[in-house]
Amino acid sequence: MWSTDQGKLHKQFEFRNFIEAFAFVTKVAMISERVNHHPEICIRYKTVELHLCTHDEENTITEKDRHLAERIDQAYKLCLTEPE
Amino acid sequence: MWSTDQGKLHKQFEFRNFIEAFAFVTKVAMISERVNHHPEICIRYKTVELHLCTHDEENTITEKDRHLAERIDQAYKLCLTEPE
Amino acid sequence: MWSTDQGKLHKQFEFRNFIEAFAFVTKVAMISERVNHHPEICIRYKTVELHLCTHDEENTITEKDRHLAERIDQAYKLCLTEPE
Amino acid sequence: MWSTDQGKLHKQFEFRNFIEAFAFVTKVAMISERVNHHPEICIRYKTVELHLCTHDEENTITEKDRHLAERIDQAYKLCLTEPE
Repeated sequence: MWSTDQGKLHKQFEFRNFIEAFAFVTKVAMISERVNHHPEICIRYKTVELHLCTHDEENTITEKDRHLAERIDQAYKLCLTEPE
Repeated sequence: MWSTDQGKLHKQFEFRNFIEAFAFVTKVAMISERVNHHPEICIRYKTVELHLCTHDEENTITEKDRHLAERIDQAYKLCLTEPE
Repeated sequence: MWSTDQGKLHKQFEFRNFIEAFAFVTKVAMISERVNHHPEICIRYKTVELHLCTHDEENTITEKDRHLAERIDQAYKLCLTEPE
Repeated sequence: MWSTDQGKLHKQFEFRNFIEAFAFVTKVAMISERVNHHPEICIRYKTVELHLCTHDEENTITEKDRHLAERIDQAYKLCLTEPE
C-alpha cells in the first residue's frame, strides 16, 4: 500500500537481491521517463523506497502521482518476489 | 531451452513490452559483469536474443557459458511473463 | 555516421568496456520509451549496434527514425569515449 | 569530493537530466555487483546521492568503501557533465 510520508506518496518494495531490486528500479526509471514525471528513488541493497509528489503543484500529491503509482504497481506485479 | 546456433549457446526470450524486456536485459548485464563473462544481447522491442560462447577458448561453448546460461534462466524465472 | 543497412538506419558505437557500453544502451532504452519508438539494439561486449526503421510504415526509414537517431547521437556525445 | 555523512562515505553528483543521471546509476549498480559491495543510492531527478559503508564491519568505513568510491569516480569522469 502507498501511504503518505512527509507530504509525499510513499511505498517500500522488497526483493531477493540487488539485481532483482535494480531491475525493478530500471522499470520505474523507464515508466517515469515515458510520462515525464520522476519519483525520488532510494535503493538500499534489496530494498527500494519511492516518494512521489508534483513539483509544479507546490510539491503536493496530484493525479499525476496517483497515476504513476498505479503504473509502478503494475510493473511490480510482474516481479516474482516470494521467497524461494 | 537453450540450443546451438552458429556454434554458440542460443536462447530467445519473449516479454509483454519493451520495459519488461529491458528490465530482464539489465539483470543479464549485471550477472554478466558479476562473473565477467558477457553474452551477445539483441533486443527487438519485446524479444531478447542471447548468444553465449567463450572467446578465450576459440569461441567454443564451455562450462563458463553453461554456468552463465543457468544463472540467466534463474533470473528469467523471476520475470512473470504469462499473458494478462 | 548513420548509414543504411538492410533498408534500416544503422550505426555502430564503441566503448571502453561493457559497463560504459551498457550505460549508453540504458540511455537509448529510456529515450526510445520516451518517444515510443524502439530501435533494434545489439550489444557485443563493448560494441553497440543500432538499427532503426518504422514498423507502421512498412519497415521504411521515416522522420521518426531520423529524429530518434539525432537524440541518440546527442546522448552519445555525453559519453567520453576517447582512449585513456 | 567524498565527505563523511552519518558515519558513511558520501558524495552528491549532478547531471543534465534524468536520463544522464540514471545512466550513471546503472554504471554504479554494475560496478557494485562486480565487487559485491553495494552503496545506498538516492536519485532525485538529476541529482544522485551515494552513501557507502561496510555492513560486515559494524557499518564503519573500510578499504572496501574507499576502493568502490574510487571506481565510481572513474566511471563518473566518463560522463560529460558540463553545462551545454
